[in-house]
Amino acid sequence: MIGSGWLAIAGLGPGDAALITPEVTDALTHATDVIGYIPYVARIAPRPGLRLHASDNRVEIDRAGHALRLAAAGARVVVVSSGDPGVFAMAAAVFEALEAGPPDWRDLDIRVLPGITAMLAASARAGAPLGHDFCAINLSDNLKPWPLLARRIALAAEADFAIAFYNPRSRARPDTLDAAFAILREACGDDRPVLFARAVTTAEEALRIVPLPAARGAMADMRTMVIVGSSRTRLIARAGAPILYTPRSA
Amino acid sequence: MIGSGWLAIAGLGPGDAALITPEVTDALTHATDVIGYIPYVARIAPRPGLRLHASDNRVEIDRAGHALRLAAAGARVVVVSSGDPGVFAMAAAVFEALEAGPPDWRDLDIRVLPGITAMLAASARAGAPLGHDFCAINLSDNLKPWPLLARRIALAAEADFAIAFYNPRSRARPDTLDAAFAILREACGDDRPVLFARAVTTAEEALRIVPLPAARGAMADMRTMVIVGSSRTRLIARAGAPILYTPRSA
Repeated sequence: MIGSGWLAIAGLGPGDAALITPEVTDALTHATDVIGYIPYVARIAPRPGLRLHASDNRVEIDRAGHALRLAAAGARVVVVSSGDPGVFAMAAAVFEALEAGPPDWRDLDIRVLPGITAMLAASARAGAPLGHDFCAINLSDNLKPWPLLARRIALAAEADFAIAFYNPRSRARPDTLDAAFAILREACGDDRPVLFARAVTTAEEALRIVPLPAARGAMADMRTMVIVGSSRTRLIARAGAPILYTPRSA
Repeated sequence: MIGSGWLAIAGLGPGDAALITPEVTDALTHATDVIGYIPYVARIAPRPGLRLHASDNRVEIDRAGHALRLAAAGARVVVVSSGDPGVFAMAAAVFEALEAGPPDWRDLDIRVLPGITAMLAASARAGAPLGHDFCAINLSDNLKPWPLLARRIALAAEADFAIAFYNPRSRARPDTLDAAFAILREACGDDRPVLFARAVTTAEEALRIVPLPAARGAMADMRTMVIVGSSRTRLIARAGAPILYTPRSA
């Protein structure tokens, strides 16, 4: 190990502080530096001796390099992600930077601290739509070509996975989710339920469930997790919001 | 709502108490009854006024009905799962029992409290193998026919997902994982890494990474999470254990 510095890549969960693990809280207590996207760093309580480094979402690789340099210089650094850092978040970016960086970075004390990723939080609020085999697909096509993504979505439907879509929609990509729904309507041809779970566990939480033929991209924004059921996913009607779940069998 | 009872279906995470969310800890503090599989109930500290109901793994539906009856009678019940209750765990079983049970169960106060599911914990310990699109498949074929499972595995490989296998092996199903590896070797034809992560975050934790051609069912047991990389999953060599990760692009 280089000096006494370390780097923890930590997940803050979906928003509610009651979903942050004690392991992450402990790492933040011992940190000298916290690095992350502006709204995630805003969730960290300031204290004397803790430097907060907030940056824009577009600069993940720069942020990763910054964290590695600080840790190599002896700082105790926590890189914060929402959800889980290993699922479409900062852990992969840090390892990309580490692999491309100076060889001695490989001797750093680096840990990934897991968190409640968005699909688990959304699933819990709605019932258990991920109770059987499922997949997670990042709809951001900044990092992969659409034909590859389209084929993956079609194969996921053919495999009869429930599908959790991360980053379903942004101003720069307003049409990707509609294109995904079109592929699924063609492949599935049924009324399976689609969950739009926005800002789960925060004050802005809003859940909506519609049948696949009625699902529209405009029902999601950057803070929405979209979960499309498998052929077996069901709704239990009741006085309040229905329960959405996928039985364990088949 | 019926009386003052409630039912929380809670995830205890992979084993380390530092990975139990404060939300779950709080529910346990207010519970009158805890219900679950023997080793999970064994993780709950006894206290006056708390009844612990431990049962065998084979009776999930009975356990779910028991929990619903207690809550309907006014008890404050926590059903405990390891990992996340919504991922191959008790939440779906409770909703199956609820759907088949008396109509007034639908008026119960029921919440699902998410947890760190095994694949997130295993991924964090190894690096970030789930850093790009991935799927989760339950290899227990008690609940689904093998031809369906085999086809799903082949399609997952064709879609180039990283694959997390839950319940990869048991005494009753010693050969399923070898059959899955055979399908993947045929479909992938490369040396992609396979992670065997046993009893992650416990004193018995053991991680092993082998190339797909060398992966064998005997490397896993009931306490092992198996993660097969996508075509893009990489290893970063270093003095200690290598870092396993999947880059964000493609």
